[in-house]
Order: sequence, then C-alpha cells, then structure tokens
Amino acid sequence: MKWPLPGWIRHYHARHLPHDAIASITLMVLLIPQGLAYALLAGMPPQAGLYASIFPALLYALAGSSATLSVGPAALPAMMTVITVSAVATPFTPAYFGLAAAVALLSGLLRLVLGVLRFGFMANLLSQPVVGGFIAGSAFMIILTQVPNLLGIPAHGDTAWLLLLDIARRLPMLSRDSLLLSLGAFVMVLLIRYGLQALLHALKTPASLGQLLVKTAPVIVMILATLVVRFGHLSVKTIGPLPQGWQGMALPDADWGLVLHMWPAILAIALLGFVDSFSIAQTLAIKRRENVSPDRELMALGLANMGAGLTGGFPVSASFGRSAANEMAGAKTQLAGVLAAFGMLAILLAGGNLFVYLPVCVLGVTIVMAVSQMLDGSLLKLSFRYDRRDAFVYLATLLMVLFIGVVQAILAGVVLSLALFIWRTSQPHLARLGRIPGTEHYRNVLRYQTETRPDILIIRVDENLYFANIRFVQASVIHFLRQHPKTRSLLLVLSSVNMLDVSALQGLQTLQAELQAQGVSLHLAEVKGPVMDKLQQSGFLDKLTGSVHLSIHAAVQALSHAEAPDFMI
Amino acid sequence: MKWPLPGWIRHYHARHLPHDAIASITLMVLLIPQGLAYALLAGMPPQAGLYASIFPALLYALAGSSATLSVGPAALPAMMTVITVSAVATPFTPAYFGLAAAVALLSGLLRLVLGVLRFGFMANLLSQPVVGGFIAGSAFMIILTQVPNLLGIPAHGDTAWLLLLDIARRLPMLSRDSLLLSLGAFVMVLLIRYGLQALLHALKTPASLGQLLVKTAPVIVMILATLVVRFGHLSVKTIGPLPQGWQGMALPDADWGLVLHMWPAILAIALLGFVDSFSIAQTLAIKRRENVSPDRELMALGLANMGAGLTGGFPVSASFGRSAANEMAGAKTQLAGVLAAFGMLAILLAGGNLFVYLPVCVLGVTIVMAVSQMLDGSLLKLSFRYDRRDAFVYLATLLMVLFIGVVQAILAGVVLSLALFIWRTSQPHLARLGRIPGTEHYRNVLRYQTETRPDILIIRVDENLYFANIRFVQASVIHFLRQHPKTRSLLLVLSSVNMLDVSALQGLQTLQAELQAQGVSLHLAEVKGPVMDKLQQSGFLDKLTGSVHLSIHAAVQALSHAEAPDFMI
Repeated sequence: MKWPLPGWIRHYHARHLPHDAIASITLMVLLIPQGLAYALLAGMPPQAGLYASIFPALLYALAGSSATLSVGPAALPAMMTVITVSAVATPFTPAYFGLAAAVALLSGLLRLVLGVLRFGFMANLLSQPVVGGFIAGSAFMIILTQVPNLLGIPAHGDTAWLLLLDIARRLPMLSRDSLLLSLGAFVMVLLIRYGLQALLHALKTPASLGQLLVKTAPVIVMILATLVVRFGHLSVKTIGPLPQGWQGMALPDADWGLVLHMWPAILAIALLGFVDSFSIAQTLAIKRRENVSPDRELMALGLANMGAGLTGGFPVSASFGRSAANEMAGAKTQLAGVLAAFGMLAILLAGGNLFVYLPVCVLGVTIVMAVSQMLDGSLLKLSFRYDRRDAFVYLATLLMVLFIGVVQAILAGVVLSLALFIWRTSQPHLARLGRIPGTEHYRNVLRYQTETRPDILIIRVDENLYFANIRFVQASVIHFLRQHPKTRSLLLVLSSVNMLDVSALQGLQTLQAELQAQGVSLHLAEVKGPVMDKLQQSGFLDKLTGSVHLSIHAAVQALSHAEAPDFMI
Repeated sequence: MKWPLPGWIRHYHARHLPHDAIASITLMVLLIPQGLAYALLAGMPPQAGLYASIFPALLYALAGSSATLSVGPAALPAMMTVITVSAVATPFTPAYFGLAAAVALLSGLLRLVLGVLRFGFMANLLSQPVVGGFIAGSAFMIILTQVPNLLGIPAHGDTAWLLLLDIARRLPMLSRDSLLLSLGAFVMVLLIRYGLQALLHALKTPASLGQLLVKTAPVIVMILATLVVRFGHLSVKTIGPLPQGWQGMALPDADWGLVLHMWPAILAIALLGFVDSFSIAQTLAIKRRENVSPDRELMALGLANMGAGLTGGFPVSASFGRSAANEMAGAKTQLAGVLAAFGMLAILLAGGNLFVYLPVCVLGVTIVMAVSQMLDGSLLKLSFRYDRRDAFVYLATLLMVLFIGVVQAILAGVVLSLALFIWRTSQPHLARLGRIPGTEHYRNVLRYQTETRPDILIIRVDENLYFANIRFVQASVIHFLRQHPKTRSLLLVLSSVNMLDVSALQGLQTLQAELQAQGVSLHLAEVKGPVMDKLQQSGFLDKLTGSVHLSIHAAVQALSHAEAPDFMI
C-alpha cells in the first residue's frame, strides 16, 4: 500500500486558499469552546482539548479521504473515555490523564491495524438501530453528566440512575451563581441561535452567512461569561490558568496492564468512533460527489487517535457540527483543518491565562447545546413504522447505555441485532405455487388465481437454507404434503436460495428419505449457479430421487410426460 | 394442551403383544450392562443406572411420540454429567449423587418448560457440524475416561490433556489382571460380533436374528467375566453389593445454590440431549413412516429426566443402539419399553449380590465398544467436500470438547456457526444483467451472451439486505456505476431479497442520494410481496427517484419510452 502526499496537496489550486482560510477561522471559533468543553466532559485538563485539536487534525488531513471532515475533540469519544477510564481512575487526576491518552493511542493503533488488514467490515456488525440507540442514549447521558456542572455541585455516577441519585442528594449544595450563569448562557445561546438568525433574515443577509454567524454563539457566550465572572466577582468554578508552552510528544505515562484490561472498551471506542466518523464523511461526500474509502478512513482515524494519545490528548473522532460548518464556510480542502490546527497551537502556546475566568458551567452549556442536536428521533420513528423489532433494538441499546453501561450496551445491541436477523431467517415463508392459466408463470396459490395438479406439489422456499431454519422447512414441507396426499412428485423451487449449508444439505437428505418412504420423489427447480455447483460436488444430486429442472414450467412438463396423463386437470 | 392416554394404549392390538414382549427381553439384555456402565461413566453408583432405566422409560412411553425410542442411560448425557458435576464435587460420593440427580431434574424441568412454551426451536441453533463435532469429541473423551478403568489405575482429568498426563503418570501402577481381563473381554466381544455373525450366516440363520444375537455380546461377556473373577480369584475392582430394595422417590439431596450456578451446563445438557434424541426419533420415524413432533418430544424427554432426577438417577436420553435393537427385535409400541422397565425393576429389587463379582474393567470395555460406534466420520468427510468452513466448525467443536470443556465447546460452536452464516451473507453476490437477445429474459452478463444498454444498469442482489451487508452492497453498486459512466437509470432487481431491515432501508436511501448527486435515478424490480409491503409503509417508495416495476423487462420497456430513443442499441 503506497501512501503518497495527499491529492489535495499535490494538486492545490491557489484559488482555494481564501475559502480554506475563511473556513479555518470558523473551525477555530468552534474548536476553542468544544476543545475545552469536551476535555471537561472527558475528565481531562483543558489543555488536553486544545492538544486533541492539533495533531489529530493534521494527521487526518494527511491520511484521510474526505476534504472537509473535521477530526478532533467530539462528544461521543469523550463520553466513552470518561465512562471507561473512570472505572479504574479518578477523573482530573494525573493517573487518569495517562490512562485516557493510552486508550486514545491503543484505540488508534487498533483502528490502524484493522484498516491495514481490511477488517473495516467489523463495523458492519453495528446496525443502524444499535448506532442510533447508542448515540441517543449517549446524548442523554452526556446531558446528565453536565447537570452537576450547570448547578455547581459535585456529583458522580457511572449510570444514569446512580448519577440522578447523587444529583438529588447534593441538590441542597446548589450554587446560585452557577445556576444563574448557566441559565443566562442558555438564554444567550438561544437568542443568538434564533433571534440573530431572524434579525439577519429580516436584513436580507444570505442564509448561509446567517447560519455561520449563529455558530459563533458559544464563543460569544464564553467571552461574555468570562467578563461577567472577572468583573462581577461571581463565585463559580472556572478553568484557571493553563500550563505554559508545548509539552512535547511522549508515550502516555499509564499502567499498561490496566489499559490492556480495558480492551472491550477500546474495541468499542475504535468501532463506534469509526462508524460515526465514516457516516459523517459519507454524508459530506454525497453532497460534494467525492469518494470516501472505509479502510482508508479507518486508518486515518487510527493515526489521528494515535496522535491524540502521543500528545496527552484523549480519543477523538469526526464532529458532524464542525465538519458541516467547515463545509458551509466554504472549505475546499483539508488546508482549512491544517490552518485551524496551527491556530489552536498558537492559542495553546500563547494561552496561559486566557481561560482563567472562563466558568465551567458555561462549558457545560456548550456541551448540552451541542449534544442536544444529536438527539434525533427520526430513525426511531422510522423503525417503529417499518419494523417494531428494529425499534426494540434501538430502545434496548438506548436504555442499556443509560442504566447499565456503554460497552455492555453495544455488545447487547450487536447480539440483539444478530439474534433478530437469525430469528427473521429461521421461520421462512414457504409458498405453494400454481400455474397462471394459459401462461408459463407459476405464482403463490394464495395470492393469485392459479391451476394446480394433485400429483405435483410445487413449493417455493423464500429464504437461504441453513442450520437454523432447515428443520422448520422440513416440517413445513411435510405439512404441505399431508394436505395434498395425492402428491407423487414434490418440486422445490429454490429461486430465493442464495446459500445452502451442510446442515441444510443433510436436512434435504432426511426430507428426501421421508418423501421416499411415502412414495414421493423430490425434484428441484431454479437452483442458482453457486448452489448448484455445491450440490453437484456433494454427491447429493446423484442420489436425488427426482431431477433438477431449469424452470418450474420445464419441471411440470417433464413430470407430466413421465407420469400417467390422466392426472391432468 | 390435552394429554390423554397415549394412542398406543388406547388402540393396543393383542397381536402386537408377542412382538413387544420379545423386544422387551432384547432391551433388558442391553439395559443391564449399559445401565451399570453408564452409571460408572457418570460417576454414579451402579443402582443409579438401574433406576435410570425404569422411570424415564415409563414416562417417555406415556408422553413421547415415537413407538420404538428407548429412553434411559446413554453415553452423551452420562459424560456431560461427570464433566459438569465433577467440577464441584467428587464422583462416587453422596454429595455428587445428589447434584447429578438435581441436574437431571432441572434439565428435565427446563426441557418441559421449553416444550410447553414451544421453544424447541432453540435447538435449531445447534448446526450439524456442531452436533457432529460434539458427538465425535465426546466419544473420544469417553473412551479416554475409560482407559484408567481398563488398566485398573485411578486417573482423573477434566480435559483430554490433563487426563492423558495423569494416565501417563500412573501407568506404572497398572493392574496386570485388569489389563488381561479387559483384553480378553475385547477379544470376546469382537469374536461374538464378527465370528458369531459369520457362523450364523454360514448356518443360513436370518440376518436380523444374527444381528440381534450379536447384541447379547456385552451380557455374555459380563457373565463370563463374573465367573472368571469369582472362581479365578483375580484381584480386580468389582461392582460389589447393591443396596437392597426400592429407595423411593424424593427431591435430590443437593446444594441447590450450587446447582443453579451450573445453569449453562444444564441448558447444554437439555438442548444437546434433545437434539440427539430427536434426531434418533426422526431416523426411526422415517423407517416406520410415523410422525414425531419436536415440542412433544422435548416435553417427553423433560418428563423422563425429571423421573430420573426424582429416583436418584442421572440425566438420560434416547440411545440409538438400544432403539435400533428394539426396532429390529420387532417392537411395535412403547409396551416393549414398559415391560423392559418392569424387568429392570425386578432386577433392582432382587439384585443385591448379582453384580458383586462383576469387574469394572469389563464395564469399561462395554462403554468403549458402545461409544466407538458413535465415531462416524461421514459428516466430516461430507463437510470437507461440501464446504471447508463447515468442516472447520466441526473440528473446532471436537477439539474444544477434548481440550477445553463441553459447555465451552457448544457455546463456541454455536457462535462459530452463527458467525459463519453472518459472514456468508455479509458479502453477497451482485450480478449485472443483460437481455438474452430476442427474449424477455435477463441474465448475468458474465455467464450468458446478452445485450445491454449504456443508459440502464441492471444489478441483481443475491441476498437479503440487512445491516451486515448493506454497506458492501452500496459500495458494490457504486463500483458498477463507475464502470458504466453513461448510466442514467439504475435498476435494482430484488428477486432474491426475502427480507430488508431498517438499516438496509437507510442504506438504500443513502444510495439513492449518492445516485441522485450523479444524475442517476433508482428503480426497483421483482420486489417480493412482503418486502414491497414494508417499503410502502416506510414511505421510501414516495421518495423514490425512479419507480417500482413488476419485471425487469417491464422496467426496461418503461425506461426506454421515458428516455431519449437515441440511447437504444
């Protein structure tokens, strides 16, 4: 596999530069509050959020296939980090920081390896209801974890239930200043989001500019809140001073034995981060008519996370909000992301006291506002309308995220999805076919006006034949046979059978023996090429009491000639 | 659910009586050595094997649906008992006896409940390669466990590896008398099996009588061995005296907390015992052209095991050897089994000192000879020829039984079978279709001589569409499209799609958006009824950029009329 300089560097057009430069400013305006907020969510120091905005973005720009995807701090991986790592270390302590960085590094390495081995298909085990339920459950969980920050109380809990209990218990400790500041920030954000947009609309500003200006809401609120705290002498928790200068690159200082024990969570972070990020890349790609490759995306996201891990960051992923804003601001290539990364580096180096008076509760507001956009009921609604069982998988995953745990939720979701698929294929539809008079077409006798012969029973099996359904099919065929006792030949139509495993082969042999005992011969029709090849090499066809026919009509004609003509209708 | 007196009692024909009586003697001749031997194998006292031959057989006769199935002590459940229960108690101790009986009771109760709830389908999760690999692995394991008995040494081990090590370590303690007696018994059995049969054949005795006489080999060898030990004063381990009289019926005296912790093993015993027993019943049923119902068999086997558990027995199942002999001896109804059960009761009541001098090593020979008939390589050979991946599942299950554990082996086998099925359906075959000139038939362009149009791309998907393959299908369709850049309409042929889940629905929506971005409309053809109904109710069809057509030909005709005629070939 060759990995040259990415196309966007080799073929960079000077005319893209102003667009990318403007987009990079938009990205920075979003990255500053999000970096700080998701670091807070992840249980990490504020500078970790800034670090996580730099190297991951640069590495993705070099390795990824999407032109506008913004990889860096994101809500989902931040929440999975805190839930996973807080089980073995206390958030906001040095031991925890090392573990979180190690998780980022390993989840990145795992993705890189899976991508190189072309194992990206593993992510296909995550069905839409599982991913949807997981994201919705996580969004609720993230909002819950921010409630203590909004109220200025300390409260913890690994599950929604424990967290709610702890919040209820500590509610009397509520900080009035925090609560007021949070409410003020909420009102401000909503005012900017809806009021400003209405105002700009009235002023006939282009809609896209209006949408972009609205995205500055978090930064504006951050600046206002910082001023209020600085000059209003509010007693609320603030970020405080950041360490000075660049901390360099290093292997995380972590208990690696402990890290390796967290492998299920690391795998979950790797796969879910990939699925989430890839579907964002795909959505953007459709708009821009470009191609994103799953295996390449997996590797690029792997490198980005390794970069996060080696610079004291935490697991990163693509952010839909930032990527969409980047696109809307006119970004043409990943140069926008690269420029924004250097901008974040400048802030980190200059930073120091920039965020001393930035209140934590306002970051909580930023998180809640960002995450509430992840709450999208459309998939659940569609699932309810389309198939309740898919909706059940969605809700089960959602509830497990809230009340049991994220890794268990994903595992249970995958198992449920697979079980549902097995269940759906384990009791296949079997149809008795008859001839549509005057034609060579044969259809389900229950749905069409058809003519049938008492001596030939034609059954179409609408499913692959494999171990989980072959006994059911056997029993169903025997049941049909009992309803049609004059049958001399049974014709199985295998037009929908794409696969037939060795258990099904044995089942067909048993069925043939049962039929033979009743004086009925077994015929096959419309066998697909690959299935035919395998039946041939197994020797089953040599022992077949009947024959294999190309079409149902050919079979009926052959059987009519072979048997007494007085059976004709 | 009504459960009247079984049909064979209500409609008993006097002319069946002599046949059933003769068959019952055959059954007893087999049950005496097998009852004692499988009790030994199960780590139970000899009388437990006799008890396990009485109530289970009577209960099965009342509840089961097969006329000739012999339910009672059997190799597979005996081995699963010793492996499961010896993990928490020492075989041949009272604590162990109570636990084994409790396992029989609970595995019976579980089967009864599963049967009443019509959950018999759970057994369908056990594919043929898993069951075959499990039986072969168990047969090897059972033979290994008898090696210490044959050599007269004590040796234990939960896995083949540990057992072999222990046997090797204790080999110097080998009892010459045991070894000689075992060898003598083997030679005798083989002489009777092959020599007697040849002799009877030469004397022109009917073949079936010969085969029946051969079945008496274990009893003859037992009697001879008892005499040799009694009068030859050999120093070998013998059965010793049995407790006098009937011990009554009681709940097993066991640590129930411990028993409930063994639930995975109990579930495994319940399901495997059922699969094994049901497939024997089915094989017999085919010969006799009778019907066996899975749910009723499950309940009957459940009652039989509850009977075993309440009379101090151990898990029981159908025995293929005994059932076939019963059939061969002319049994017409379950009366044969009932009479044999009363015969066993008589022996138990009279018993006492009957087996004092019966050497344990000869029972070991009986077990080895019986179990070696379970070693049948035909399924493995078929799997190798048919599909190596099925053969891999077989061998993996076999090796796990030997080297890891029976419950883990079944679990891993089920997971492997399911994973294999998911894998097989996750990368479906997609074919581009063309028209066979002069017809309305459309076939794979790679297999047939066809004509195609550059503006219409026809793709047939040969698999259900669901979460694990929809991304693959999406990518494959886009790949086809890139090869045919003049495409204006994409026609997806869904004739093989029996099921389409909500993830696939979303995937089709994404695909349609991708196509739309490239100016290509999406059409569907040959959509099956149930899939069509669901697509309709989801609202997908309202947003379809193309239309749904009944047949490929209808679609092509409609598209030809709609579009510029200069695209025609």
